[in-house]
Formats: sequence, structure tokens, C-alpha cells
Amino acid sequence: MRKYESFKLMMDPKSVAVIGASDNPKKVGHIILQNFIDMGYSGRLYPININSTGTIAGKKSYGSVKEIGESVDFAVVAIPAQAVPGVLDECGKAGVKSVLVVSGGFAEVGEAKLQEQLAGKARKYGFALLGPNCLGVVNMRTKINTMFLPMYKLDTPKPGGVSFASQSGAIGSTVMDLVASEGFGIAKFISYGNAADLDEVDILEYLMRDEDTRVIIFYIEGVKRGREFLEAAKRATRIKPVVMIKGGMTEAGAGAVRSHTASLAGSYQAYEAAFKQAGIVQADSLDDLLNFAKIFETEPLPKGDSVAVITNGGGTGVLATDAVYLSGLKMAELGKKACGSLRKSMPPIVNIRLPLDIAGDADDKRFEAALQAVGGDPNVDMIMAIALFQTPGADESVAASLINYKSGTGKPLVVVSCGGAYTQRQRKTMEDAGLPVYPSPDQAARAMAALFKYSASKGAKWKGRTK
Amino acid sequence: MRKYESFKLMMDPKSVAVIGASDNPKKVGHIILQNFIDMGYSGRLYPININSTGTIAGKKSYGSVKEIGESVDFAVVAIPAQAVPGVLDECGKAGVKSVLVVSGGFAEVGEAKLQEQLAGKARKYGFALLGPNCLGVVNMRTKINTMFLPMYKLDTPKPGGVSFASQSGAIGSTVMDLVASEGFGIAKFISYGNAADLDEVDILEYLMRDEDTRVIIFYIEGVKRGREFLEAAKRATRIKPVVMIKGGMTEAGAGAVRSHTASLAGSYQAYEAAFKQAGIVQADSLDDLLNFAKIFETEPLPKGDSVAVITNGGGTGVLATDAVYLSGLKMAELGKKACGSLRKSMPPIVNIRLPLDIAGDADDKRFEAALQAVGGDPNVDMIMAIALFQTPGADESVAASLINYKSGTGKPLVVVSCGGAYTQRQRKTMEDAGLPVYPSPDQAARAMAALFKYSASKGAKWKGRTK
Repeated sequence: MRKYESFKLMMDPKSVAVIGASDNPKKVGHIILQNFIDMGYSGRLYPININSTGTIAGKKSYGSVKEIGESVDFAVVAIPAQAVPGVLDECGKAGVKSVLVVSGGFAEVGEAKLQEQLAGKARKYGFALLGPNCLGVVNMRTKINTMFLPMYKLDTPKPGGVSFASQSGAIGSTVMDLVASEGFGIAKFISYGNAADLDEVDILEYLMRDEDTRVIIFYIEGVKRGREFLEAAKRATRIKPVVMIKGGMTEAGAGAVRSHTASLAGSYQAYEAAFKQAGIVQADSLDDLLNFAKIFETEPLPKGDSVAVITNGGGTGVLATDAVYLSGLKMAELGKKACGSLRKSMPPIVNIRLPLDIAGDADDKRFEAALQAVGGDPNVDMIMAIALFQTPGADESVAASLINYKSGTGKPLVVVSCGGAYTQRQRKTMEDAGLPVYPSPDQAARAMAALFKYSASKGAKWKGRTK
Repeated sequence: MRKYESFKLMMDPKSVAVIGASDNPKKVGHIILQNFIDMGYSGRLYPININSTGTIAGKKSYGSVKEIGESVDFAVVAIPAQAVPGVLDECGKAGVKSVLVVSGGFAEVGEAKLQEQLAGKARKYGFALLGPNCLGVVNMRTKINTMFLPMYKLDTPKPGGVSFASQSGAIGSTVMDLVASEGFGIAKFISYGNAADLDEVDILEYLMRDEDTRVIIFYIEGVKRGREFLEAAKRATRIKPVVMIKGGMTEAGAGAVRSHTASLAGSYQAYEAAFKQAGIVQADSLDDLLNFAKIFETEPLPKGDSVAVITNGGGTGVLATDAVYLSGLKMAELGKKACGSLRKSMPPIVNIRLPLDIAGDADDKRFEAALQAVGGDPNVDMIMAIALFQTPGADESVAASLINYKSGTGKPLVVVSCGGAYTQRQRKTMEDAGLPVYPSPDQAARAMAALFKYSASKGAKWKGRTK
């Protein structure tokens, strides 16, 4: 368990050394050091620079980790590739417990031997090494953030239950930014780049045990240890959902992978079969990846595949019906009790059938009555509520009725709302309250199908979010 | 040409009567009258109310169209269903040239005979009738807007080349709102509801001749005159692109259609075949409909199916490659000249191949050089530029370089940018400048494939937007 124990310290270190720290705001080492300070990291922080003149960013700095005089839990290395092996020797001798190398210039540019040296040092000294050629880690709880990006360009996600691991730094930072703007919460972020030492298997082992992580999402390009990965995934998916997107699904995409992180991409069919066997939820696009993560973070698992669509727009209800069936789910048949209750509460213009079109003048009371009747029906496993805020009846109170209903149900509820500024404000209110909101019936139905698929996989202990 | 000439007057009337006009802000007739005033409609406007007491909304009002004493080009009818036939008699006798009935309460609630009376009056008096059970029309140029919705909830689109016809009012208003927030422009909007008189065929006939309309997008649930529709579509698609989404593609969706607008939905396969034969671009989701409209509005047609992907994020380039192939397009092979020029202008870390990963530190100059080299290559038919603004190199100047490049090229250029607030601002700048921006490589590739598909259809006169 060298890697697991070491990785845990990397995510929750009592002391951090930033090697390559600098007062030059353009240097990666400067940005990383500043991130720790800005996030409010409360452990001991040691700026290291070979040309150190005493202080960096107002903190006492050192020429080498050896000079610190105490063992360091986590060293972040942001220096030119050629200098990394020597610095790793220093780290090893100084008893550093875990190392992240963000620097590029290794296997991805043909320097495979230089990269192999890094892995050798990790094994020799017994620390785990993340990277090289990556953005590193974010831990929302311990306030660790090694992403060396201009943070004013990224929205910061709130703390939550989704952990995201990405071989690609670009996809990692984009997804972090999107997650924040979509209003759902992040536990851990791990950008692992060339995976010289810590790889997909180690990350799965860590995240499946991590108590902050309720849902694992993963961008992979290639897997070095196929069989171990499959075994780890099988164990992980019994504990919590794992959603993955595979870059290089097509032959041409696989060619692009070779020149990107120098991984072997394998064939789409092979991955698809392996994913299925391991209970991994496969995402076929970045849209799916985020849409799936959102529903897993907020909703309980459904007992079956029967959906009830409630809508204040007839045409959108028609498209939702198509989307439900095209995603592999089906529309529920309302039971007698629900029908009776709806006949009493709905105006005569409303047809008592699914999709339940409660008409363009539907207000919060009508939404509420429809949700109660439909949600209480044992034939209904999941609810898709389409709230079009362009209609005369729908305003803030409709958003509130959806939020209030959600807190009382054990069934997944997703909302579809699309439109401009007014709708975006309603959407934000609902998302901040933990409701998953989607911009189209199609995206919502695909997410619901992913949730159902996971719930139907055998042996899963995870039952979804409890309300 | 009763219908065509009459329909033209409905969209460009010199005088409008609003029947059911009211000072009560909750009445549909009030909202419609107020919309004409707020839009700055410059023709003569006559409020009509059977209980008229002299003025409505500060304008002289009348008890009936007969009292106006001049012929009226366009009458909007917003009164209870049972009273509509009588009012249509008055319109006919007063020489009204075109009529819109927004009121519901006809075939969609089983009152087919009442609806048939409406069609009969239209034929008898020789005016065209739009509706009933619909939102009516918007003409951005003549400042006509009969949408009786609380307009503060909808963003107003800018004038542009996309005309949208929708059987469903809800989808119509949602799409109008989305179009506005996506930053592309609308020419005409037509919500036609139950189609008692004017139907899909008449709308196609009108829009294919309309000079403001460069692209037609259509939401249909069922078509009353199948053969005529196909014939009209064949002619329309030779003149300009027609993108359609069909509600009720699945059997269950078709059931939902029957209870929505009482149309016969037909089978998915039948529509798919008919669409293909007529050169109609089929959208399978609301997302597609908007994404396709956006590229048709802004881009020229490609000469072939070869895409060049330029990206400042490696992983996103891999996913884009997958998306290009999964959408049925292919990646271009760069020619010698382009490769030579790129070798000179790119740093050594950049692999000179597609997808062209210009690295996370790429700035506007590098984007510009890449666009010039790749765009000038005769092997390249279309460009997908992925600009991830989370990266250190990308800022406002990268958005500017993409906008500047666009103006010089005859090839379609789409941008992929996804993220939170900072990215949204860049996206808005680019969209306002007429660049189509997509939130994922998948959505971009599907739109490019739709553009190529239309360009490959035989006999099309339309060559796409000229720059």
C-alpha cells in the first residue's frame, strides 16, 4: 500500500513544499504557491527555489527540501524536466512522503527514459508520484489546489460529492469550470497526465475508499494495467457509481491519443465491453459526462425504468416522450388513485395521462398537485418535470414548488428548463437547492437512463443520494 | 394564391385590429395590443372589444371591426372559442384581409366541428386564417408580435436570417428565448397551432419566398397534406436550408401528439425517408435544432467533409476527433504547404498533424498562425477551433483572433468553448460578431455534419452565408 497511503497524504498533507516556487507571477511555481495561500491552506507551507534569497511570497524559503529540517508530506515539483530526477533524489533523502510533478517534457515529447527515471525514484524512496505533465490535485476540504491556471478565468465549484479524475489537464480544468457554473459540488480533482507512477488503478483505489467522494467521474485515454483496472472498477462500482468517458473511441481519435499522452488507446468495442462488465457508466460525450455526474450527485436511485413526465408545454411533452423511449426508458402508466386525484385537482382542459400536460397557465399550486399525485403513484419510478418559464403561469413560485417537492420524495426528480436570462435565474435557484436541471428533454432522459442503468447493475451497495 | 397573398399581408400589415383588446393586463387581448405598441409597430392599430367604452390602452376603440370604416389588413382574434365564428363573419363582411385566431378550445379539446367552421369562413370570405390555439406571428422587420406571453420572461432575439415555424406554442416561445440568448438572429416566427386553414405547406410556401428568411427551422407534429408538403419542401430546400424536428418520432410520442394538437403523427421511418427525399435536414433533438440553425445562419457551405481541428487542449482535441468521425465527417490530411508553414510558426512542442494541438500556452498569435496555415490548405473544407479559455494563453485576444480570421475565409469556422462566467463572456463576444460557438466538440461536429449534408444535396441553389 505504498501508493495508497502516500496518495492519502498528498490529498491531506500537514506540510507542503512547492519546489520551483517564485515571486515571478508568470512562473507555474508562483501560481501554485499562491493558490495554496489563496485557498486558505492551513498546514505548513515551504517555498523551495534553488536560487532562494530568503523569502518567497512573504514566506521563509529554502534552496532545497533538505534544508527544511523536518519531513514533508507533499512536494509539488514545478521545474524544467531535466532537473526533476535530481530533485526527486533530494525529496527521497529528505523523507518526503508524496510527490507531484506538474512539469511537461517527458514521454509526451518522446522522453520516455527520463520519465522512467521518475517512476524508479518513486519506487526507490517509497513515495507515490503523480504526473508528470499534469495539473495535479484539488481537495475542496483540505484546501489543496495545484492547478497552475489563472484562477480568475475559472469559476470555483462548491464542495460536494463528485470527484473527477482526468488524464487530460485541459478537460480537467474545463470540467471543473463547468461543474462550478452548473452548480454542483466537487470533492476531489485529480489530473494525472502521463501516469509514470500513480495511474488509473491507484486513483480508483483511492477514490473508492474516499469518504468525501460519492460519485467518481473519469476521463481516460488509455489504461496501462488493463486487468487490474477492470478488477478495481468492479470493486469501485459496487461502492459508488463510476462514470467514464474514453478519449480515442474511433480509430482516428486513437491516433490523436498517441500523440497526446503517448498512451495506447485500445479499441472502442473492447473498452465498451470492459466498462459494461465492470459496471462502469459510459459517457459518450463531455455533455453526457457532466449530465450524468449531476444526476448521480443529487438523486437517489430509481427502483425501475418507468418515467412520469409533467409539463407546462405540450410540444415539449411530446419531445420528452420521444426522448424517454429513445434513451431506453419507458413512460409509466398512471394508477387509478393518481388519476382520480389528478381529475380532482386539474382543470378540465388537462388530459389525465402521461405526459401530463398541465397547460401553459399552470402555476405553483398546479405543479405541486401534479407532483404529489404522480410522485405518489407506485407505478412511477422517476419524474421529469418540464418547467417552461416563458409561460404566463410559471414564475419563481414554480421553482419553489419543485424545490419543496424534492425534499419529500425518495424518487429521482429532474427538471427541464430552457431559455434566456429569466429562465437561467430560475435554473440557478433550483440548482443551488440541489435539483438537477437540464436544458433539453433529451439530455435529461439520457441522464435518467444512466441512473437507472447503474441502479440495475447487480451487487451495487450504493443506493443514491438520500434526501 | 388566396392564402399566400393574405399571409403576406398578415406579416406586413398596414392596419391591425386586435379583437378582444382590453385594459385588463391579465387578458390575452391586452398583452397582444401592448406588444404592438411596445415593439413600435408603425401601422394603424384598432383595439376592438364588444364592451368597448371608447378607448383601450389610450387608443380609440371599437365594438366591432365593422365600425372602423376602413378595410383592415390583419385581425388578431383573442376571444372565447364559441364567439369566434360570429366574429369571423364580421371580419369577412368588413373586408379584413387576414385573420389570426390565438384562442384555444377547438379540435385539441374535441371541438373539431367548431374548428371546421373557422376554415369554412376563411374560404367563404377569402382571407387566410392562422391558428386556432397558437401564439401567432412575429416579424422582426415590421415589428409585429402577437405572442401573448409575459415578455419580461423572454429575451428578445436580434433581427437575423432564421425563421422558425412551430406547431407547438411552448416550443416556439422556448426556442425564441433560446435563440436570443444564443445570440443569433430571427426573421419570422410562426406558431400555427391546430392549422385549421394555413398549414405546414402554406408556411413553407411563404417562407421559401420570403427574402428576410435565409434558413427555415420547423417543429412539426403531424402533416395534414403529406404529398403537397413533400413537394413544397423539395422546392424550398433548393432555395434555402430547411431544418425540421418531428415530435412523436416514437410510438409513445405519437400517442402524446394525438392528445396535444390532434394531429396524426405517422411513423418515424416514413418521415425520415420523406425528409431525406425532400432534402430536409432532420434534427433529432431541440439541441440539434438550435445548433443546426446557428451554423446555417452564420456559415458558408463547405465544399467537402474534411475537418481541421485546432485546439489549445490535447484531450479536447482527442474527443473532437472522435466526434468528427462519429458525426460522419472525417479529419483532413494537411498538405505540404500548410505543414511547412506550421513548422515555421509553431513551437517545437507542437506536433504538425490534425488535430493540431497548439498547447495550453497558445495565445492569439499562435491561433492566428494556425488558422491561416490550416484554413489556406485546399485539403481542409471546414475548421473547428477549440478555444479553452481556462488555459494560461487564452484571453480576449484569442476571441478577437477567431473573429478576425472569420471575416476573411470562405470556409465554415465553428468555435468550441465551454466553461463558466469568464468563458461565457468570451463566447458572447464571439457570437455577437457572428461566430457560431458550441459548448462541446460533439455538438459542434453534429452541426458541421448537418451543414455538409445540406451542401451535398443535389440542386441546392443556396450556397450558405457569404462573408
